[in-house]
Amino acid sequence: MAHADGSGDGVRHFTRLDDFTPQQIEDLLDLARRLKHKPARPDLAGRSVGMLFFRPSLRTRSSFEAAMNQLGGRTIALAAASDFWDLEVREGRVMDGKAPEHIRDAAAVLSSYVSALAVRPPVEGQSWEVDRQDAHIRAWARYAKVPVINMESALWHPLQGLADLMTLREHVGSLRGKRLTLAWVHSPQPASAAVAHSLLFAAALAGMHIRVAHPAGYELDEGVLTDVRRVAGTTGAELEQQEELESAVEGAHVVYARSWQSLGDYDNATLSASRRARFKDWRIDERLMARGDDARLMHAMPIRRNVEVTDEVLDGPRSLVHLQAENRLHSAKALLTMLLRH
Amino acid sequence: MAHADGSGDGVRHFTRLDDFTPQQIEDLLDLARRLKHKPARPDLAGRSVGMLFFRPSLRTRSSFEAAMNQLGGRTIALAAASDFWDLEVREGRVMDGKAPEHIRDAAAVLSSYVSALAVRPPVEGQSWEVDRQDAHIRAWARYAKVPVINMESALWHPLQGLADLMTLREHVGSLRGKRLTLAWVHSPQPASAAVAHSLLFAAALAGMHIRVAHPAGYELDEGVLTDVRRVAGTTGAELEQQEELESAVEGAHVVYARSWQSLGDYDNATLSASRRARFKDWRIDERLMARGDDARLMHAMPIRRNVEVTDEVLDGPRSLVHLQAENRLHSAKALLTMLLRH
Amino acid sequence: MAHADGSGDGVRHFTRLDDFTPQQIEDLLDLARRLKHKPARPDLAGRSVGMLFFRPSLRTRSSFEAAMNQLGGRTIALAAASDFWDLEVREGRVMDGKAPEHIRDAAAVLSSYVSALAVRPPVEGQSWEVDRQDAHIRAWARYAKVPVINMESALWHPLQGLADLMTLREHVGSLRGKRLTLAWVHSPQPASAAVAHSLLFAAALAGMHIRVAHPAGYELDEGVLTDVRRVAGTTGAELEQQEELESAVEGAHVVYARSWQSLGDYDNATLSASRRARFKDWRIDERLMARGDDARLMHAMPIRRNVEVTDEVLDGPRSLVHLQAENRLHSAKALLTMLLRH
Repeated sequence: MAHADGSGDGVRHFTRLDDFTPQQIEDLLDLARRLKHKPARPDLAGRSVGMLFFRPSLRTRSSFEAAMNQLGGRTIALAAASDFWDLEVREGRVMDGKAPEHIRDAAAVLSSYVSALAVRPPVEGQSWEVDRQDAHIRAWARYAKVPVINMESALWHPLQGLADLMTLREHVGSLRGKRLTLAWVHSPQPASAAVAHSLLFAAALAGMHIRVAHPAGYELDEGVLTDVRRVAGTTGAELEQQEELESAVEGAHVVYARSWQSLGDYDNATLSASRRARFKDWRIDERLMARGDDARLMHAMPIRRNVEVTDEVLDGPRSLVHLQAENRLHSAKALLTMLLRH
Repeated sequence: MAHADGSGDGVRHFTRLDDFTPQQIEDLLDLARRLKHKPARPDLAGRSVGMLFFRPSLRTRSSFEAAMNQLGGRTIALAAASDFWDLEVREGRVMDGKAPEHIRDAAAVLSSYVSALAVRPPVEGQSWEVDRQDAHIRAWARYAKVPVINMESALWHPLQGLADLMTLREHVGSLRGKRLTLAWVHSPQPASAAVAHSLLFAAALAGMHIRVAHPAGYELDEGVLTDVRRVAGTTGAELEQQEELESAVEGAHVVYARSWQSLGDYDNATLSASRRARFKDWRIDERLMARGDDARLMHAMPIRRNVEVTDEVLDGPRSLVHLQAENRLHSAKALLTMLLRH
Repeated sequence: MAHADGSGDGVRHFTRLDDFTPQQIEDLLDLARRLKHKPARPDLAGRSVGMLFFRPSLRTRSSFEAAMNQLGGRTIALAAASDFWDLEVREGRVMDGKAPEHIRDAAAVLSSYVSALAVRPPVEGQSWEVDRQDAHIRAWARYAKVPVINMESALWHPLQGLADLMTLREHVGSLRGKRLTLAWVHSPQPASAAVAHSLLFAAALAGMHIRVAHPAGYELDEGVLTDVRRVAGTTGAELEQQEELESAVEGAHVVYARSWQSLGDYDNATLSASRRARFKDWRIDERLMARGDDARLMHAMPIRRNVEVTDEVLDGPRSLVHLQAENRLHSAKALLTMLLRH
């Protein structure tokens, strides 16, 4: 599949859900469901995937490694103890600075060693305008000769989006017209907006009625919202935003809790901390969940218990949280099978 | 096997030798012997074990990984470059502090990715009363839905105990009534008492006559000694303690050298260093070994040559040290086979 | 194969190209070529190689891991998060210092867990006279009971030498009498001389006419040059040195660019930096390459673009750089097959 930035030459990447057609996403989810319910076969014996984590990861990395193992393949951790953190990304530079290697050369060489590259790119954290470009993961996709899989960039977390869609289909059934509320919740240590972005895209693909609830100042990326509205226009999905939590969960079939940092205060930790301290009551409890329509709770984890969501909800029958995390494994197996099987 | 703290629901853990019945330990040792002498078969193909090392390890980790590899399975290093060091262990907390995740959620999710969890828990080192509770490994066993294997906690090192028992059976033959001397030795950097504890338990299971020799102030954990005496009561084992090395090795069939830190000075590095400096002559040499009954030397390694034991003994015919380390591999294969084979 | 320092007892190591006979090198290269052009078979199923990287690595480690994976075997990273950095190497010491373990014991035990040990030893960087002894890798070879593979020591990088020879044979054809210019190039962060040393040895084996071009003060190791001249005497190879770049590439079939640190200023970073600042014009560009005889460019990577070699050359038809890196994979597969296949 050709990329807007000219990468590809027939190499299919998975850097965002939009890299696949809606039909391909359907096929992926069908495959994930089948792989979940039958023993895995060693379809990827002898194949290796190189993993490049420029930021730490637990669930994404371990579910991905377990998926590759179950399929008979292996993973190689490439970033550990290397000087890989200083790759040059710009073209034509005289490389007399810190970076000892150009991403163009690293990507070409690693492509000859492994069957795919799974990359969690670094995030500068200085400017949202810069980080939202996802320059690093796009450079890997441009130069690699094998599929590049996004293990969570600043803008997108497509593997989480896939697992979320799989979980929604399993527990809500037909998604068209069902009500999903993405609820911003307080956390002393908010996550990135990538999970929220990929969820909105996935829910729009599925034709859901989406409400996003967050305090003022926590607006999601405008470019992402434009993409989501474009997809919604083709599927009948709806997207509304609210700045009040109670009404936003009214009648919801699913409440998806997520804490994300303010993109407006992105470069200002002090302002960011003082802003979010004002919204400590943005927490999901049983009283709130009761306003939904037999509502289920989703959360991408890690979760701060009794800060983001109460124990009562998490340990009760409404919670899909652990099942959703398990589906990371099965959706990763489906993606790897689709990308790597001969 | 049900645990005292309510964990389990049929999941069999290996957090201490006592988690298995004496007959199960016998079966494990028989299996280890068979696996040592025939080529391994890929009985665990497609299975993964997650490894959580909160403290460094060489022999335990590498023998375990090699064992899993020989059986056709794989290991996944979970703690590398994650924020896993700050898991909340207590129930019902409002998690607004440092820990971003509860062990309950981490254990549940990881249980859906891997077939077992191999954990070397963190040790606080502030209070023996606290550390001896082994709270961390017990929490993993409580919440995990797959077997938890203790890769050495503050209190126990059951994998070492298993390899030690295997080595004793190979080189001493029938163990009932044989004399084993556990000899404290000096080291500028003493190890934990976990190896000594599991050795005593193993030797008691085997009905050996055990002498523990150490300077005053190096008494082992009283709760462990109670457990050991309880087992000794059922097997005919004997346990005596001495504060003098020469007489303790008199007539011994096996001298097991080990340096452990004083549990009394546990939280006081200065006091601890000045205490052990007084016992630099607690070292095993050939003259001492000659007092035994054709005595063999054992040591769990790493070993400081000519400080803990002299080169002459280590490189001579009495030493079982390398053979004992090799048996870490074979006993790990037996344990993994027993826990994971369908 | 017996080693000069008494190691071996029939264990065949690969710590330098000289550990193998010329015929064995030929066989290795033939096997590498065959393995490159047919699907790998799981000849090493159930076998593990332990990897000990005391310095970071990207290409060497990842090509080696991918090679082992393709052959059905596994790698175990042994040095991660261990106290392995402080192994005692000297015999007979009272080990009351920093090192908690002797390399003799570590090597013996690890030999019982894995089928080979792949070691990138530490380099002190204080004295070339000391580092050129390669004491660390030699100690591993002395004590290990399984093959030891040198993943780049201070003096040699035999795996790179093997891949270079394979690449030369593929793209230059018959090597006897062909002209190879090893060209020192400027870099703000020069590499070690190990790659240059193994290249010279390999080219001498192949009977090439070798020119080494470098500014005054960048002479390669005299002991290595003596070894190279000895081999050249048996193969008809020639070796000359020049202190001028333009004439050195005249008529060359291959230009091999490499930046290495001055062995004379080895212990003096300030002197070393001011010396190399004088030679910023030692850079390979198209004008220079045109002086060769349809010359090809080689480089062991990582490469600082437009500092060591210009983009024009690197991205043009003369460059063998990525192909050369790919051959690291195939030559590693050949070596592992030869050392480990029953």
